[in-house]
Amino acid sequence: MASKLAAECIFCRIIKGEIPSVKLLETPTTFAFLDIGPLSEGHALVIPKYHAEKLHQLPDEFLADTLPVAKKIAAALNLENYNVLQNNGRLAHQEVPHVHFHVIPKPNREEGLTIDWPAKQADPGKLKELAARLNL
Amino acid sequence: MASKLAAECIFCRIIKGEIPSVKLLETPTTFAFLDIGPLSEGHALVIPKYHAEKLHQLPDEFLADTLPVAKKIAAALNLENYNVLQNNGRLAHQEVPHVHFHVIPKPNREEGLTIDWPAKQADPGKLKELAARLNL
Repeated sequence: MASKLAAECIFCRIIKGEIPSVKLLETPTTFAFLDIGPLSEGHALVIPKYHAEKLHQLPDEFLADTLPVAKKIAAALNLENYNVLQNNGRLAHQEVPHVHFHVIPKPNREEGLTIDWPAKQADPGKLKELAARLNL
Repeated sequence: MASKLAAECIFCRIIKGEIPSVKLLETPTTFAFLDIGPLSEGHALVIPKYHAEKLHQLPDEFLADTLPVAKKIAAALNLENYNVLQNNGRLAHQEVPHVHFHVIPKPNREEGLTIDWPAKQADPGKLKELAARLNL
């Protein structure tokens, strides 16, 4: 499938080379570069060459290539601890409305991604009801 | 590529059906189920049918199928705001040593994933040096 880019999108313009970036690598469907506002050294962004705001709007052909590119970056950085994060929607901390995957090295407690994990105990019956309703 | 599972791994045992789970869907290379300690309703886990602790240890064939499965879950849940997160290493909050992707609905400020984002301003020259050193 051919790439589809938007004229006004900052990430589409980076892909087209209209806005400079520090590129790490690209494939026919994916572009990867270093984040200029990193949480830690090596913080990279992996973006599909297809303009979609959210993950569920992307064609599978573009989704399939994203993680192999993230893997190459993690391997090249020789990372032991790192997070791969993709945010959808302003409430979920998405800043640029073009799907992007963060590869964030976690070299120590202070640098990299910091998350809270206020897990709840699920009601098993309600989980089963939800799965049945989704019917995937 | 055939799946490769480990006898002692809790997620491999869930894939094999030795430990019960609330399954959402599976493909030849991927298994998805509801998290029993959810951050929000619909919190799902997507795992490859291949035992590897970290993302960069997974064959590309397994990585390629992960996000299309995550996409199906996000679409079925009709999510507007959500996070896709994959943690590598204890320091980066990985709890089970088998690669897993969280699909976490973010219905409001209180529920779902909460993250800190202490971004730094990068030195453009250092970013270029790093990219050249990685030579991807």
